[in-house]
Amino acid sequence: MRNFKLVVAYEGTNYHGFQIQKGTGLPTIQGVLEKALSTLTKEEIKVIGAGRTDAGVHAKGQVVNFYSQTKIPIEKLPLALNSLLPRDIAVLETKVVPPDFHASFNARSKTYSYLFYNDRIRDPFWQRYAYHIPVPLKSIREMERACQIFQGEHNFRGFCASETKAKRFTRTIYACSLEKVEKIIKLQVTGNGFLYNMVRIMGGTILEVGQGKRKAEEIASLLENGDRTLAGMTLPPQGLYLLSVEYD
Amino acid sequence: MRNFKLVVAYEGTNYHGFQIQKGTGLPTIQGVLEKALSTLTKEEIKVIGAGRTDAGVHAKGQVVNFYSQTKIPIEKLPLALNSLLPRDIAVLETKVVPPDFHASFNARSKTYSYLFYNDRIRDPFWQRYAYHIPVPLKSIREMERACQIFQGEHNFRGFCASETKAKRFTRTIYACSLEKVEKIIKLQVTGNGFLYNMVRIMGGTILEVGQGKRKAEEIASLLENGDRTLAGMTLPPQGLYLLSVEYD
Repeated sequence: MRNFKLVVAYEGTNYHGFQIQKGTGLPTIQGVLEKALSTLTKEEIKVIGAGRTDAGVHAKGQVVNFYSQTKIPIEKLPLALNSLLPRDIAVLETKVVPPDFHASFNARSKTYSYLFYNDRIRDPFWQRYAYHIPVPLKSIREMERACQIFQGEHNFRGFCASETKAKRFTRTIYACSLEKVEKIIKLQVTGNGFLYNMVRIMGGTILEVGQGKRKAEEIASLLENGDRTLAGMTLPPQGLYLLSVEYD
Repeated sequence: MRNFKLVVAYEGTNYHGFQIQKGTGLPTIQGVLEKALSTLTKEEIKVIGAGRTDAGVHAKGQVVNFYSQTKIPIEKLPLALNSLLPRDIAVLETKVVPPDFHASFNARSKTYSYLFYNDRIRDPFWQRYAYHIPVPLKSIREMERACQIFQGEHNFRGFCASETKAKRFTRTIYACSLEKVEKIIKLQVTGNGFLYNMVRIMGGTILEVGQGKRKAEEIASLLENGDRTLAGMTLPPQGLYLLSVEYD
């Protein structure tokens, strides 16, 4: 029995998120991956994902692991799997890892990005991949300052969907930055863990700073008081990407 | 009655081409545009397109014109129309033009691009926007030479789908070039007119040159003898873009 690690990319538009939703029949990334792996190995494969992405959220570097007795050479796995997967999911890398490797528990950090498309007219080629902001943003500099305030260890209760089952809300953000290239504004966040909708609420709050509706400084008090109703909107899923998962 | 010119972008994946297919109920760009324009103006609007793009083909700068008595200020048209159009179609520019302007007859030239995604593993984010070539291409230089041979006035009967209704096959290619940026190879062609599937067959032939299946020089004789069965494959639609239409 070997433990396999896969790096997977997917366009999340047509999926109800990463995690299997038992009994619903809804298409999920995990469900499609397990089906392809089970077909290939002729075993009943269960995959462990590093992070649960929500419906419509994309991944450029999701990580999963699974156990199998398959004798298929490791270097043949990506092409063999991709021939069984739909075109909006692709296995990018495969590796045999130690038996105790767990894609989620062993993750040291994860990096997400959120893309805004900022132009008066929407672009049909970005509609699935970025959130359209039709009005000019007042200050990218102020948004950058907002990003800086998020860095470090904080209680993120105020930046977590109220329907969460989490009990601890302290997370460390190692990096949070903003980059503007032509009409695309890219928010990138690396942290040791993320609460439900956390990046989308952080992004919604940073956006409101860019729109001049809030001052960057406000974020410190939002982190302080932990009231979800005071932070910004939850951004829609199509701008969000799980970029990578980092391990020691 | 004014004559309006629109520049339109669309992601063609979900459409059965530009042109209305009467009685079929199939979604087309022209059908959706006419419906939005008729709703907005409360008139029965017919649009004239510069070029008919096929099912699955994209446009970054399709041009259409239509006649209307609407009093809506011209600068308000793009946003008003875009609010009525699905998210995979957008009106980028609007202009009032002389009564005799005809989007198709007055077009001096059109520019198309075709995108190849060249990497062993497919990318889910390019699956709708480029044609995946999993094997390394032997020579981009040889493909560039093939492009050069297409330039000028030629009989393109051998580069036209056999089910064409065209009677004249002479067309002038003003520019044909290739550019490689990371994993994307972009073929760009400007000409005074294009036959049915012409760019996709040119691209298929240039690709075979890149794969070492043909010499660039062969293209001269393919143009000479005009036999469709001797030219390359018709590339799939998802890599093709109508980039722009040029007028005097």
